[in-house]
Amino acid sequence: MNYTAVELIERKRDGLELSSDQIRWLISAFTSGEVTDYQMAAMAMAVYLRGLDHQELATWTDAMLHSGETLDLSGLEGPKVDKHSTGGVGDKVTIPLLPMVRACGVLAPTLTGRGLGHTGGTRDKLEAIPGLSTSLSSEQFMEVLRSHGMVYGGQSENLAPADAKLYALRDATGTVPSLPLIASSIMSKKLAEDLDGLVLDVKTGAGAFMPDPARARELAATMVGLGKAHGVRTTAFLTTMESPLGRQVGNASEIKESIAVLRGEGPGDLWEVVLALGAEMLLLADRAPDEPRARSMLTEAVRSGEALAVFEKVVEAQGGDPRVVENPSILPLAPRRAEVVAPAPGWVTGCHALTVGVAATRLGAGRERKEDSIDPGVGVTILAKPGDRVERGQALAEVAYREQSRWQSVRGLLAGAWSIGDEPPEPVPLMGERIRSSEMD
Amino acid sequence: MNYTAVELIERKRDGLELSSDQIRWLISAFTSGEVTDYQMAAMAMAVYLRGLDHQELATWTDAMLHSGETLDLSGLEGPKVDKHSTGGVGDKVTIPLLPMVRACGVLAPTLTGRGLGHTGGTRDKLEAIPGLSTSLSSEQFMEVLRSHGMVYGGQSENLAPADAKLYALRDATGTVPSLPLIASSIMSKKLAEDLDGLVLDVKTGAGAFMPDPARARELAATMVGLGKAHGVRTTAFLTTMESPLGRQVGNASEIKESIAVLRGEGPGDLWEVVLALGAEMLLLADRAPDEPRARSMLTEAVRSGEALAVFEKVVEAQGGDPRVVENPSILPLAPRRAEVVAPAPGWVTGCHALTVGVAATRLGAGRERKEDSIDPGVGVTILAKPGDRVERGQALAEVAYREQSRWQSVRGLLAGAWSIGDEPPEPVPLMGERIRSSEMD
Repeated sequence: MNYTAVELIERKRDGLELSSDQIRWLISAFTSGEVTDYQMAAMAMAVYLRGLDHQELATWTDAMLHSGETLDLSGLEGPKVDKHSTGGVGDKVTIPLLPMVRACGVLAPTLTGRGLGHTGGTRDKLEAIPGLSTSLSSEQFMEVLRSHGMVYGGQSENLAPADAKLYALRDATGTVPSLPLIASSIMSKKLAEDLDGLVLDVKTGAGAFMPDPARARELAATMVGLGKAHGVRTTAFLTTMESPLGRQVGNASEIKESIAVLRGEGPGDLWEVVLALGAEMLLLADRAPDEPRARSMLTEAVRSGEALAVFEKVVEAQGGDPRVVENPSILPLAPRRAEVVAPAPGWVTGCHALTVGVAATRLGAGRERKEDSIDPGVGVTILAKPGDRVERGQALAEVAYREQSRWQSVRGLLAGAWSIGDEPPEPVPLMGERIRSSEMD
Repeated sequence: MNYTAVELIERKRDGLELSSDQIRWLISAFTSGEVTDYQMAAMAMAVYLRGLDHQELATWTDAMLHSGETLDLSGLEGPKVDKHSTGGVGDKVTIPLLPMVRACGVLAPTLTGRGLGHTGGTRDKLEAIPGLSTSLSSEQFMEVLRSHGMVYGGQSENLAPADAKLYALRDATGTVPSLPLIASSIMSKKLAEDLDGLVLDVKTGAGAFMPDPARARELAATMVGLGKAHGVRTTAFLTTMESPLGRQVGNASEIKESIAVLRGEGPGDLWEVVLALGAEMLLLADRAPDEPRARSMLTEAVRSGEALAVFEKVVEAQGGDPRVVENPSILPLAPRRAEVVAPAPGWVTGCHALTVGVAATRLGAGRERKEDSIDPGVGVTILAKPGDRVERGQALAEVAYREQSRWQSVRGLLAGAWSIGDEPPEPVPLMGERIRSSEMD
């Protein structure tokens, strides 16, 4: 069936439902270029303001997922499970998590993304390891996955190409924070991975793309519903992103912290998220009978060194220097150091994730625009986290930077990221609600 | 002040007001290409769904009007008054009206437009006259206006170029029928003409672009308000467009009917609109003390032959063959004829303007797409109008066509345009409310 872009835009503009046929035509014609960028921009704004109902969203996601190739992992034995985070500051969870679940018998065919805005991208962090590439051909991707049971892949232009095209357009037309457009963008890429299970980490709070908890919950439930509709066991966790996760915000420095986790070290809040998500991945893969035993399996995989061994082999298989495991000092490091100090004694009541993320980006750890390049050696090390007692002049953070002018431009910003009070703060729970497709109606 | 397109799109998307600075930057950056088509498409959809308030609309119109050149008519003596119609089927009013008001001492620096969709364009109709061109250079335009006191100009790319660009985009993105976008599009072009007075003919009913009377009234009042804010005495008439105006729908045939009016002949409904609009133009130009005397002046200009003489001279000045006045048979005429006949005896209760307009367009009298060419010789002559008594088999219309296949494709459509009943219909008043800027608060 053939439609015109104008008639479909008009329908959505007027609050009418688009049929499955209409949505499939639209996404396919947009992918081929028959529907122009300006027509899709008008449609995206109409969707932003009018929404997509349950059925429209399911079809939209499915059409995006089928706009290009999909992975075929049917030749690989074992349960395939992946995870996705909506993005937070210092969120390096994927990096230690995959080797851990792999050591417990789960296949992890992951496609990671680049950072944009105030959050880093797992793909950029991994490429801080000298020699490592995430730009794998299909053959390389399958070879690493087959040999090692996991892979740090990079999002490919062949998978869900409609999403890449639409995302670039949304970014330039003020239509990014639309719940159905976010949900379909994430899920079309993940569902193209031929998974049995999927764990979603939906961030809320000041450092998240969707700070409002009610909207974040709606996004989580929407994505779990889409996974379920596609026969993929899906669980979403709502997790708080008020302060950066862990102590490192930067590319090379987050690799160091990830390796620390794989050695059984590293900060408690990072461990908390890794274990919660990892345990759920084992449960979805039917690799553990219950959550306590899933957690034990994960800590045992670290204690035994098996998870670290997986990491080392995958790094090597992807061209990275495996000595990084024994000697993290081979990672790039910016030449200059500065400190952010406490202006007064007291209790740290907050460390504003968004501010730290913006500062790290401006130092060169992230991209303000897509064409910006990344400096893997710059970053912020958080020395004082909420709940810590500090004295006047005590270092709250250490900053690694390359250019003096960039440090000058973020110095005041960073100083304002910490709040210090007379009383210790109420602890904010890190892990919030869990939404499982198996428990949905 | 510099903005980014995204931040302005986001403001409008979220229902916030755009400042005058922001609107002026947007229109100027769109004109220069700095704001892309897809960004403006998203903005147009946001404006469609969120609207523009009074102040935003005034600034938007003013920014479009100043996006290119404006006419400077300060060197010409006498009141400059123009008219604009929102477009109807068979609406050739401008063609006889301008020579009539000119003969009464009003300067008419008109810029006419091409037809699109189911309505014809005055510019296309005029160019049915052999040799006549409406694509005049600024110098030619001023020369004709100076010598003859009126001109049939064509919309220039130099006047309000932002409007031409935005209109093309709206046409492709389902954002044409937006009240503020329509009002600013019309008024930015008309206010660029350096006028003292402006009469607007806002069509309502089944053959109009804005069929709903309440919306049409709102559009009329909005445009009159914009004219007043720019110091131009402006009057809008709401006129009914249920059946075609006059008896001719087609390009050459509408020229014939226009010449008939200038000879004091032609159909009554056409005369009714010409006289109402013309009288108002004389009043706005202070050329008549009251409406009855204004009407007398217009009929006298026709009776004396003065109006026809103005027409003949302007046609010649614009390269047209002036013999058209004495011998309309030099106009192009399609070679084939067919009739639409009454299927039953009775009273004609309706002749659906939209249907006749669509049929004429498909025969080649108009453009379905901008790149289509016009066939000036095809058209529909309405033989039975609402209120007429017809017998079974009597001709309701005569169709002039060139291609058999085109006639076949509209034959059924046209047959359905007439409704025939057992009782004569209630007459529908042609001229509705009049809204004058001088009577506005």
